[in-house]
Amino acid sequence: MEMYSGHINKLIEELAALPGIGNKSAQRLAFHMIHMPKEKVNRLAKVMMEARENVRYCQECYTLTDRDICPVCSNQKRNHNLIMVVENSRDLAAYEKTGKFEGVYHVLHGAISPMLGIGPGDIKLKELVARLEGDVEEVIIATNSSLEGETTAMYISKLIKPVGVKVTRIASGVPVGGDLEYIDEVTLLRALEGRVEI
Amino acid sequence: MEMYSGHINKLIEELAALPGIGNKSAQRLAFHMIHMPKEKVNRLAKVMMEARENVRYCQECYTLTDRDICPVCSNQKRNHNLIMVVENSRDLAAYEKTGKFEGVYHVLHGAISPMLGIGPGDIKLKELVARLEGDVEEVIIATNSSLEGETTAMYISKLIKPVGVKVTRIASGVPVGGDLEYIDEVTLLRALEGRVEI
Repeated sequence: MEMYSGHINKLIEELAALPGIGNKSAQRLAFHMIHMPKEKVNRLAKVMMEARENVRYCQECYTLTDRDICPVCSNQKRNHNLIMVVENSRDLAAYEKTGKFEGVYHVLHGAISPMLGIGPGDIKLKELVARLEGDVEEVIIATNSSLEGETTAMYISKLIKPVGVKVTRIASGVPVGGDLEYIDEVTLLRALEGRVEI
Repeated sequence: MEMYSGHINKLIEELAALPGIGNKSAQRLAFHMIHMPKEKVNRLAKVMMEARENVRYCQECYTLTDRDICPVCSNQKRNHNLIMVVENSRDLAAYEKTGKFEGVYHVLHGAISPMLGIGPGDIKLKELVARLEGDVEEVIIATNSSLEGETTAMYISKLIKPVGVKVTRIASGVPVGGDLEYIDEVTLLRALEGRVEI
């Protein structure tokens, strides 16, 4: 769009490349930023860069964190023999918000998806298997109830059972096709309580 | 959300403060940024700061531009005696995209809104009046057809008519309550052609 300035065009282009932001939203955001106080724009830019620079994987559960070991994993009051497997850190946050899960997590950072070309080697699965060398009693699979989530759950179940660890799946209280992070806490808890061995 | 890192929380907070970005979208964007290559995050941050730093108002029409005088105003082939008044630079871009308007623009950066406490002094109105000291033949008011846009149109009409300049309003081909930037080019052109003196 020649009628804007080069700087605004570049900004619109960068913003439109973010997920869920179309061209119109990118325009709106860009013009909003141009009108924001300069300090606010610089702060947002700094926070973005700092987050990208300093956030890393927890060495135990692989969630995103500022520290080597995340607050959940470094909490000795949690049950470290009970591991809930989730697809991403947002799903971890969703269960953590219920305040009722006493165990720890394992974040896969994805789900198996033949369609997207994501195989077992592309998510944190061997890292999960490595954790089972300890005294783990139960692995609760809390991947989404989507096709990919179910596929991943089945794969993990087959992978882990030979090790002799109990494997459960959160109950189908979670609506089929639903994305875990958008589900209310009551449903999340019901799904946790109703988990069955698979 | 304690379960995330402080850096991610701060980023989510900053993103959620942007218009049209709710808490869930902010989370999604933040996690996306964490997984982006570092150079890409830094480039987005840099583009944001540079845009805010370098973009200014055109000294003639007050649109946002990288230069002292914007490309439209510095184009001597345009009819500088025909001024289209728009609410913001996105609306200017919408008309400019039709490629059929030969005049120049005046960007108000807002509309009169008693509800939001935006008065005539808060938008670029005296700057518009100042421009009429030249040989301006016609002022086309192309504010939105919202309550605020209509109010602003009436106000400008009353303000300018005593000066002896012809004042027109784009036709009501634009759907009532509609936002100019989302309207298709054909409708925008029909509205321009059907403009009537007010």
